[in-house]
Amino acid sequence: MSSIKKFEKPLGMRDTFPPIYEKIERTRQIGRQFLRSRGFDFIETPTLEYYDTVGKASAISDASLFKLVDSQGNTLVLRPDMTTPITRVATSKLLKEKIPLRLAYSANVFRAQQMEGGRPAEFGQMGIEIIGDKSVYADAEVLIIVIELMKEFGIESFKLTIGHAGVLHDILNDYTDHDYQRETLQRLLVERNYVGFEEAVHEFDLPVTKANALLEFINEATNLAAIEDMEKYVRKNDGVEYMKQLAKLIEACNLSQYVSFDFTLSSHMNYYTGMLFEIFASGSGFPLGNGGRYDGLLNLFGSDVGATGFGIRIDRLLEALPKEEMVEETVCILFEDEEFNRALELANKLRQQGARVTVQAKEGLINKDAFTKLFSRVVELSQGEEQ
Amino acid sequence: MSSIKKFEKPLGMRDTFPPIYEKIERTRQIGRQFLRSRGFDFIETPTLEYYDTVGKASAISDASLFKLVDSQGNTLVLRPDMTTPITRVATSKLLKEKIPLRLAYSANVFRAQQMEGGRPAEFGQMGIEIIGDKSVYADAEVLIIVIELMKEFGIESFKLTIGHAGVLHDILNDYTDHDYQRETLQRLLVERNYVGFEEAVHEFDLPVTKANALLEFINEATNLAAIEDMEKYVRKNDGVEYMKQLAKLIEACNLSQYVSFDFTLSSHMNYYTGMLFEIFASGSGFPLGNGGRYDGLLNLFGSDVGATGFGIRIDRLLEALPKEEMVEETVCILFEDEEFNRALELANKLRQQGARVTVQAKEGLINKDAFTKLFSRVVELSQGEEQ
Repeated sequence: MSSIKKFEKPLGMRDTFPPIYEKIERTRQIGRQFLRSRGFDFIETPTLEYYDTVGKASAISDASLFKLVDSQGNTLVLRPDMTTPITRVATSKLLKEKIPLRLAYSANVFRAQQMEGGRPAEFGQMGIEIIGDKSVYADAEVLIIVIELMKEFGIESFKLTIGHAGVLHDILNDYTDHDYQRETLQRLLVERNYVGFEEAVHEFDLPVTKANALLEFINEATNLAAIEDMEKYVRKNDGVEYMKQLAKLIEACNLSQYVSFDFTLSSHMNYYTGMLFEIFASGSGFPLGNGGRYDGLLNLFGSDVGATGFGIRIDRLLEALPKEEMVEETVCILFEDEEFNRALELANKLRQQGARVTVQAKEGLINKDAFTKLFSRVVELSQGEEQ
Repeated sequence: MSSIKKFEKPLGMRDTFPPIYEKIERTRQIGRQFLRSRGFDFIETPTLEYYDTVGKASAISDASLFKLVDSQGNTLVLRPDMTTPITRVATSKLLKEKIPLRLAYSANVFRAQQMEGGRPAEFGQMGIEIIGDKSVYADAEVLIIVIELMKEFGIESFKLTIGHAGVLHDILNDYTDHDYQRETLQRLLVERNYVGFEEAVHEFDLPVTKANALLEFINEATNLAAIEDMEKYVRKNDGVEYMKQLAKLIEACNLSQYVSFDFTLSSHMNYYTGMLFEIFASGSGFPLGNGGRYDGLLNLFGSDVGATGFGIRIDRLLEALPKEEMVEETVCILFEDEEFNRALELANKLRQQGARVTVQAKEGLINKDAFTKLFSRVVELSQGEEQ
């Protein structure tokens, strides 16, 4: 075989070098221990799923899916999220009587990129799902866990923005005349394009009362003084009432300073049906993660038990973590031929004291100085010399 | 959208449920800590690689590769092994002056299955690579680490079968008349088909001295009394000499009881050039893992610094691990509406004592008995009652 010409990686694919790997691993272990202590069980699902099952249900746009065809002619996808595979598992395998299920995951998900723009096509996510509890307490549990987990990671300055997919849907529906108008406004809110929203409202040439209500709603909801202020925009009050209850539960835990309510919050994940939220660390324009109630996804899989959860992106979490230097003692023991055994014995002794110890034959080295510079301590064994 | 009909997973794909997940995770953490303490740095490479780079170099048959085409028209593969991607990273990114590199990984690899036969198409591997040390000490280090790691996992009864790709190649080459004969015999040895080997030798109608030498070699090598006994089959003695040195180093560490030498050992990984080995736990017909020196793969990537390493399959390792029950205290706190805060406070107290605590609203439950049976202890809070 001729030698390989290309050393490149596919678009959006990254290598993770040791210092970042260790940071990710430590972060994952903190999250793992925290979520397990709260009664969540970790599961893993396969990297490849059927397009007809997880691909279609996932709410990730088709252009962002990595697709392939297997030897049987089925179209497969690399999982674009973890919520959909876990919903597949939960609705097909796990017993309904034992619900609510509390499941957790830490896994990579895949989103195809159309051009090199610095966005990763594979990234780690960690999150939880509570499946089979429709009560407000399950949503409160999700929010409280996010807040406590952020603190556990050492992130001091962060905020959860909380909205309600059902309330927003009803308002947009009531104050527009056509589905396409509602869908356009919804899309503009997903993009947080408030200027575009106002322009669209004017363009639609709606009855004045409707147009004014939409413009007022946008202004009031993005600078919300009290959840009650939303009541005047809705006919049925249950969504707003639900959010008042949720706010009360967070208040009772003295965590209100970490949340704000914004009823214009909308997600490209169209399976959210109730409460939904995004997590922002100060100084970052991108959400670290998001979550919400996704009873709609359960319905797609033929189940009506309801579900809520969240996922955090590990890459963005890493950027929000407090800076810390990892201090480890790394020892290099260099030996000549006859000293092999002595080198191994010394290495084991130092490892028992907690050091990371590399044992290296001098004859295997090309550049001794360059190599030994990588260690905090170097021990050189020479023939005949006593340690 | 209509509801999803299929709950199946693609051929060879598996869900990993919590009890197995925890076992895998504990095993990975033991391995991780062990390998780090020996100076190995963990890295992660992307799930998707270019077919022209990693796909072609990987020595995994084309039919076993999961292939897809990206938006630029490039053919990608799901990584079929970790050694090839790490070689890509090492030869392109890591500085030559600082070699030898000691790298480790713990990741899933992918092998497409043509039919449902119980073989997983995605499985975890953990392993190490020492890149840039051609000395016998690097190979000895790999073997010693495998042995110590097996013990660290609590596996008492296991054996490493060690061969030499170069010695075997020379012998097959010297005692056959055509490349196709050598390749046929090599393939039969990969399959451990000794009967087929003898039949093929007879079929080839070789000169008597060659045929007899091959038959004698097979008998003697598979029941090897001493490495020296191989000397009579080779013209150049350096490979056998190397193995004698290696055996001496293992002997010096008092680890000889864990190894046996078999010069018929051959691998479908055609990039092995020197020492190669397989790891067997007693009672299992499949190797837990394998390794060896793969200077040939480095050559493919335009480097001549040499490399050696091993990889263990996590699924097979799990089957070889001693049985152990995981005992954890799992507490469920059931509460009614007004007791939310008290429930959270009690939960945090119990968590500080080391328990895993689930807090569950009674109103969220469908079947209280079925749910509470999952826990080792249940605390039911009722309104007004003091804890």
